[in-house]
Order: sequence, then structure tokens, then C-alpha cells
Amino acid sequence: MKLYSYWRSSSSWRVRTALAFKGLDYEYEAIHLLEQGGIQHSEAHKARNSMEQVPVLEVDIDGETRHLAQSMAILEFLEETHPEPALLPEDAFGRARSRQLAEIVNSGIQPVQNLLLLQRLGRSFDVDAKAWCAPFIADGLAAYEKLARETAGDFSVGDAPTFADICLIPQMYNARRFKVDMSEMELLLQIEQNCMALDAFKAAHPDQQPDAAV
Amino acid sequence: MKLYSYWRSSSSWRVRTALAFKGLDYEYEAIHLLEQGGIQHSEAHKARNSMEQVPVLEVDIDGETRHLAQSMAILEFLEETHPEPALLPEDAFGRARSRQLAEIVNSGIQPVQNLLLLQRLGRSFDVDAKAWCAPFIADGLAAYEKLARETAGDFSVGDAPTFADICLIPQMYNARRFKVDMSEMELLLQIEQNCMALDAFKAAHPDQQPDAAV
Repeated sequence: MKLYSYWRSSSSWRVRTALAFKGLDYEYEAIHLLEQGGIQHSEAHKARNSMEQVPVLEVDIDGETRHLAQSMAILEFLEETHPEPALLPEDAFGRARSRQLAEIVNSGIQPVQNLLLLQRLGRSFDVDAKAWCAPFIADGLAAYEKLARETAGDFSVGDAPTFADICLIPQMYNARRFKVDMSEMELLLQIEQNCMALDAFKAAHPDQQPDAAV
Repeated sequence: MKLYSYWRSSSSWRVRTALAFKGLDYEYEAIHLLEQGGIQHSEAHKARNSMEQVPVLEVDIDGETRHLAQSMAILEFLEETHPEPALLPEDAFGRARSRQLAEIVNSGIQPVQNLLLLQRLGRSFDVDAKAWCAPFIADGLAAYEKLARETAGDFSVGDAPTFADICLIPQMYNARRFKVDMSEMELLLQIEQNCMALDAFKAAHPDQQPDAAV
């Protein structure tokens, strides 16, 4: 497998965590989102993903080379094709809540701080990215914490990491970039600490990627 | 089951389509998103969904009454608990592509036209909703069509409806509200026609809901 990724892309980070957690080897190809107007807009990358975004997972399925995009679709694909170790609980409610929490981040918070959106806001409407993003991230993470209180053990749903935690960790990193105060989000901070004690979460961190500009 | 819904909410519409397609009966409770500052912000609804949004599916799981939110999480829950008739193909690639297409809408387009986002853009930054939304919808649907050409039969992936079509149809309705020109998106228009010939898609349309203001 080959992953087209950018070190600071939170959606790429989700897929890196899942691949590492499941012990799957892959080749890493960096797609720089800012240089030369954004390599994601190159013809080569457009052919991989019509949305001109990372991540893209290049994978052999039934003898054909396929390009899969959209991090949540890739997570579900990995869970179905490499079920162990699992990233969803076994029970219907736990599975639903793991996905619900993941979606708070995936559709509820992350799109609001998406690169293209921030670029359009700045260029066409002169809106400041930090002033724009911070309340969505703060409200979204507060809603996440409130919901996670119903199911959390060491992680967001029970005592093993799920899709929820995989989405949460990059979002907390972005919250810090946008100066969101998380000091009262005690449960989230505890979950983050538990995640970051695991090798898979360490390996997936932006600073550990070949294209990291630290 | 009971669905907390708003007639024009595209995420509620997705869940209504899945429920109808799978032949599941449910009670409908309208949550008006605009009246009285938005009923989704009431204490009663906050207790159901910390994100203060619709849809919420109230459902009995293993003897407990649960409130599930986030349309994609609900679709996955319904597919796992009521697998027939299926809303995902059987093969790994078809499943991944159905979800990838659904995510183009779910995380790539819909959040940009989300009610709260438009309210904040208008109130705090004086940005016009139509001017803001139209290019995201146009680009997103163009990316959807390009990707769907690889897998489409009568529907986006093969000859049966999937999560992809369930997300596409409400997004095309919103495209028209935001005056996006879809006249050259021939494949999407054909898929829409095929969907709207099905009873489940007819029943889920906003105009057919008890709270429709037509």
C-alpha cells in the first residue's frame, strides 16, 4: 500500500494512525499542500482524487490498483479488510457511538478549518482564520466531551481506541494551533494522554513524518 | 424508532431515505431549526444531541433507549442492524467507493452550507450565503460526477442505491437552492432521475414531511 499524505493534514493523520494500529506497512509519498500552489492540484494527484485532497490510499483490491480517498471511507475499508486489531467495538451501540463521535470531528469541526475553505475566506471575504475557526472547534470539542462522558473508559468508547479517538487526536492538535482553551476538557486531555502512550499514535504524529517541517 | 428531523435538513433527509428503503417504521418528530431561535438549541434537544442538530434517531438497543446522531453514523448503524435491503455493495471496492462518494457530500460539501456556519458568516463577517456556498457545491458535485463515472450503473455505484445516492440527492436539491448550474452534470441528473423513481426516495423528500412548509 502507498499513502499520499501531508504531515499536518489531520485527515491523513487519521489514516496513518489506523494503518499503524493495524500493523500495516505502507510507502509514504508526501503531497505538499502549500508549495507551488499546492501539489494536490497537480494533474497527477487529480487523477488519484477528483477532490484534489489528501489522504489517498493506493491499494490492490482483487488484482486492481485502486485509489481510495476520504479518510472515513478509508478507515471503514481498513476495518473491513483488516479487522484485527479492531478499531470499532463489537456491540451495535458502541459502534454507533464511536462513529458518532468521529463524525463530530469529521463533518462537524474539521471541514470548517479545511485549507481550501480558509483560503477562500481569506482571499474573497477577508476573514481571519483564527477568529473564524476557534468557536467551531471549542463548541465541537465541548459537544464531543459531553457525549464521550456516556461511554468513555480509557478511550472515548470503552477501553480500546476507536475511530473516535483517531479523529479526536488530530483535532486537539489543531485546537492548539488555533489557540482554543482546552484546560477544562479534562476527559479529552486524559484520553489524549492514553492515546499518545500507544506506539501507533506516536508513529502517526505529524512530527514523525518524512515531510515534517519542524 | 423515532426520528427527530427537519423537513429541509439534508442530513435528516439521508436518514429518512435509509429508513424508507429498509422498510422501517418510525415516528416523526419535527424540530424546527429556525423558529424561536432554533428548537435544536432547546434543553430537551441538547439532551438528545450535544451538537444541537438533527437528525437524532431514538432507538431501543439491547433494552436501552438510545439517541443516535450524525447521519453517517446512523446509516452505518441501520446497515449493520437491518442489512437487507442493503445500501452498500458486497465487494470491498464498491463499499469503499460508495462511502468515498458519500463523504464528498458529507464532509466535503454539506458542512460548508451548514446552517450554523452560514449564520456565523452572515452575522460576524457579513458574507453572503449564496456567493459563499455556490463554488463549493459546484466543485464538489463536479468531483463527485468525475469519480462516479468509474463505477456508475443506474446509480452511483452499480445498479442499486447506496449511501452515495442517499447523500447525493439532498445535495442536488440544495445546489438548486443556491443556484448552482448542474445542466452539464448529465450523469448526476440521470442518477437523480433513477433515484426519484423509487418509493423510498419519494417518501423521504422534504415536501412529503409533516413539517413541510410548501
